[in-house]
Amino acid sequence: MAITTKIVLIMEYDGTNYHGFQLQADSPTIQGETEEAIRKLTGERTRVISASRTDAGVHAKGQVASFRTASHLSPQTFVKGLNHYLPKDIAVKAAYKVENSFNVRRNAISREYNYYILNSPTRSPLREGFYYLFTRQLDIEAMNQACQALIGKHDFASFVTCFESRLKSTVRRVYQAEVKRDGEMVVFNMVANSFLPHQVRTTVGALIEVGRGKMSIDEFYSIMEAKKPALAGPTVPSCGLCLMRVNYPYPFEGEMS
Amino acid sequence: MAITTKIVLIMEYDGTNYHGFQLQADSPTIQGETEEAIRKLTGERTRVISASRTDAGVHAKGQVASFRTASHLSPQTFVKGLNHYLPKDIAVKAAYKVENSFNVRRNAISREYNYYILNSPTRSPLREGFYYLFTRQLDIEAMNQACQALIGKHDFASFVTCFESRLKSTVRRVYQAEVKRDGEMVVFNMVANSFLPHQVRTTVGALIEVGRGKMSIDEFYSIMEAKKPALAGPTVPSCGLCLMRVNYPYPFEGEMS
Repeated sequence: MAITTKIVLIMEYDGTNYHGFQLQADSPTIQGETEEAIRKLTGERTRVISASRTDAGVHAKGQVASFRTASHLSPQTFVKGLNHYLPKDIAVKAAYKVENSFNVRRNAISREYNYYILNSPTRSPLREGFYYLFTRQLDIEAMNQACQALIGKHDFASFVTCFESRLKSTVRRVYQAEVKRDGEMVVFNMVANSFLPHQVRTTVGALIEVGRGKMSIDEFYSIMEAKKPALAGPTVPSCGLCLMRVNYPYPFEGEMS
Repeated sequence: MAITTKIVLIMEYDGTNYHGFQLQADSPTIQGETEEAIRKLTGERTRVISASRTDAGVHAKGQVASFRTASHLSPQTFVKGLNHYLPKDIAVKAAYKVENSFNVRRNAISREYNYYILNSPTRSPLREGFYYLFTRQLDIEAMNQACQALIGKHDFASFVTCFESRLKSTVRRVYQAEVKRDGEMVVFNMVANSFLPHQVRTTVGALIEVGRGKMSIDEFYSIMEAKKPALAGPTVPSCGLCLMRVNYPYPFEGEMS
């Protein structure tokens, strides 16, 4: 058997035209496009694994993915070569050679997501496809008070959209949850060890209810404590969501070649 | 003759698919789309005038345009109604009723443009269409030293791409010219009373020559002083350029109805 090395990719993509990261038989996915680009570059059929499975329409600024290769191409050649073969809306920003034992998913200590709410009466053509338009006023301070309930190790069962029997546990550790206004853009930032399916989008749905005065902060806390799915409120659309980065105990930079 | 009122629009657009602001017979333009939306909303054929004529492919975050109307629709109705008829990549962010004597072009005291240089080895799918990719290293400090030559009242003949006989004068007053790095994005910001055709793009072309070490700061000053067109260097592409705002001696807000 050929000796293989493991390559880690830092990826940025506009998820608009893809059915998420994970491979699907009949729909374009980030994984599918990346495996196809690797095949064109190296001639190898390989499996690409991502640190965070982004859903259909979700974007990424710093997705981390890995694959095994028997080729001896340098990480820099992988960056250039894969960008040549990848479509314009997917890019490899950096590549590193890592230990074969390294696992992008298991070794990740946290994931960071941003959700972009355009809080304006009108759309923004310069940011088309990268936000959720919410026209009514939002009380950012109330939203941030609700965010306090999220921080720490909690059972987030209330933020699962439907009962997900495949989940062993709905307990997650949230390191950061914060809402900031930047002009007409309201950005929700959340860092957690890992996320439940749709967790950011159901959380933002509930936070918007708080921000518009339809849900009190006490009610938000009660929903958290109830640990019952589908109590939290509407799920906001995927186009506003972006995986910002995945954190590891040590930087990849040291392994750059 | 019907009594008309004058409406001012603050407009944001992604210029990628348009041949600039100004009306053209056979190509889509921002003016053409806006006049068509007004016709659909009010039934009137009217002329839309902009404060700054943006070229083909140039974007705007705060273009200012005006037109006359005999309709009695409120500014807010114009915002909603025009956004309904305008294509997705053009938006009216606000509308104001102004004095008939008000002229968006003559009354403007300054225009502000940003030019976005993605200074990275790789493309950025999240900002596709809104930057010029420059992969080599840039010396931001040297670029800012060169910028000092631009500030003040000067003859900018060197920054005209070809001899423009229709220009009465190539003297302009520059209030601000600055280069800032924001992650992998290098943003050139320039505020002037008005701009010569392609002035920002020829200026950025020359500043990049300085930033990459191909042109000394002294040479940049000499080119300024030579006052001869086409000396400055390459013109960078229009996709990186964005009209940020147009300034007037007083805010429109006071006239909102």
